[in-house]
Amino acid sequence: MMKELIVKNRSYRRFYGDKKITKETLLSLVDYARLTPSGANRQALKYIVSSESAVNSAIYTTLGWAGYLSDWDGPSEQERPTAYITIVQDKNNKMVTAADQGIAAQSILLGAVEIGFGGCIIANIKKEELLTILNIPEQYEILLVIAIGKPKEVVVIDEIHMGDSIKYWRDEEQVHHVPKIRLEDVVLNYK
Amino acid sequence: MMKELIVKNRSYRRFYGDKKITKETLLSLVDYARLTPSGANRQALKYIVSSESAVNSAIYTTLGWAGYLSDWDGPSEQERPTAYITIVQDKNNKMVTAADQGIAAQSILLGAVEIGFGGCIIANIKKEELLTILNIPEQYEILLVIAIGKPKEVVVIDEIHMGDSIKYWRDEEQVHHVPKIRLEDVVLNYK
Repeated sequence: MMKELIVKNRSYRRFYGDKKITKETLLSLVDYARLTPSGANRQALKYIVSSESAVNSAIYTTLGWAGYLSDWDGPSEQERPTAYITIVQDKNNKMVTAADQGIAAQSILLGAVEIGFGGCIIANIKKEELLTILNIPEQYEILLVIAIGKPKEVVVIDEIHMGDSIKYWRDEEQVHHVPKIRLEDVVLNYK
Repeated sequence: MMKELIVKNRSYRRFYGDKKITKETLLSLVDYARLTPSGANRQALKYIVSSESAVNSAIYTTLGWAGYLSDWDGPSEQERPTAYITIVQDKNNKMVTAADQGIAAQSILLGAVEIGFGGCIIANIKKEELLTILNIPEQYEILLVIAIGKPKEVVVIDEIHMGDSIKYWRDEEQVHHVPKIRLEDVVLNYK
C-alpha cells in the first residue's frame, strides 16, 4: 500500500482547475503533519491553508515552477492548483533539525494522494510577497508551499544510473518524465 | 489508512532485541525514499543500511537518545534497534532544499510501520565516529540515522494548547507520552 502511494505521489504541476478542495480536507491533511515526529518535539511549524480562488490566484504569482522546463512558465489558468498549504516556522522557536519540514510535507502529500489528489512541494517562493498576501505575522518565516489539486498530467519514473542526467522533462505526449537513480547506486553498501 | 499509519508512526526507542530485520527489508524501505520527491530532483541523498549485530552495536555508541528523559541513557542491550539506516548527502551535490532528508526519513518510517516495525529519527550523532564505523567515503556527510526495530513500548499522544510544555515524558507504567499542540493552534487561519 505504501509502495503504491509512494510511487503515485509524484510532483504534479498541472491540475483540473475545477476540482475544488474543501478547507476541511486541507485541515485533515495538516493534521497528519501535526501528528508527525518533530525534532525534540519542538513543533516549530505552523500552517496556512488556502482553498479560495482569489487567494489561490495571489499565491500563484509568488511561486516558481519546474526549473528544468525552461520553455514552460507554469500551469495555465485552467490547470492551476485549487489549494495551497504554506508551511512556516516560528523564528523564536525554530526546528532543531531541518528534517521537520520534509516530514510534514511528505505526510501531507501522501495523505492527498490517498484521497485522489496530488501536488508539488515548492521552495522557489517570493517570500516577502507571500507574507503580505497571507497576512503572516512577523514572528514566522516561510519554508515551503505545497500546491495541491486533482492531477491532470501523467508522470513516470525512468530508472537511471548514477551520473546520468537527473533533469526531468516532458515528451511529445506531454508525459512528464522523472529520472530516478537506481537503488543499487543510492545504497552505498548495496552489495 | 494514512491516518492510522501516521498516528502509529511514533518515535519508538525500545524494541524487541530478538526481532531481526533483513537487509532485503531495509532495501525495500530505502526504495521508498529513493522514489520520493527531491528538490530539483537532485537526489543528493545516499543510504547505508545495517542489520548485523556487530555493526549495530557500534552504531549505537554514536547516538544520543531522548534528550528530555534525563534519567535514561537509552535502551538496554535487550531493547536496542535491530537495524539502522544512515542518511548521508554528497558534499559535492547537496540538497537544494533541506526538506529532502525529512521526506526520505518519513517515507522509510511509514513503510516500516506498515510492516509491523517502527523507529526513531536521530540527529544527535557523533558523526566523525560513525563515518569511521561505516567506512563512509569522504565525499559524504551524515545527516540522520533512522533506528528501526519491533517496538516494545507504548507511545501515546496528549493534546495540548500552544504554550504548554512540549517535553515528552514517561509515566509510572513506562508509557511514553508525547504532547502535540492541537490543530486549532498550528493552523494560523484555522477559523
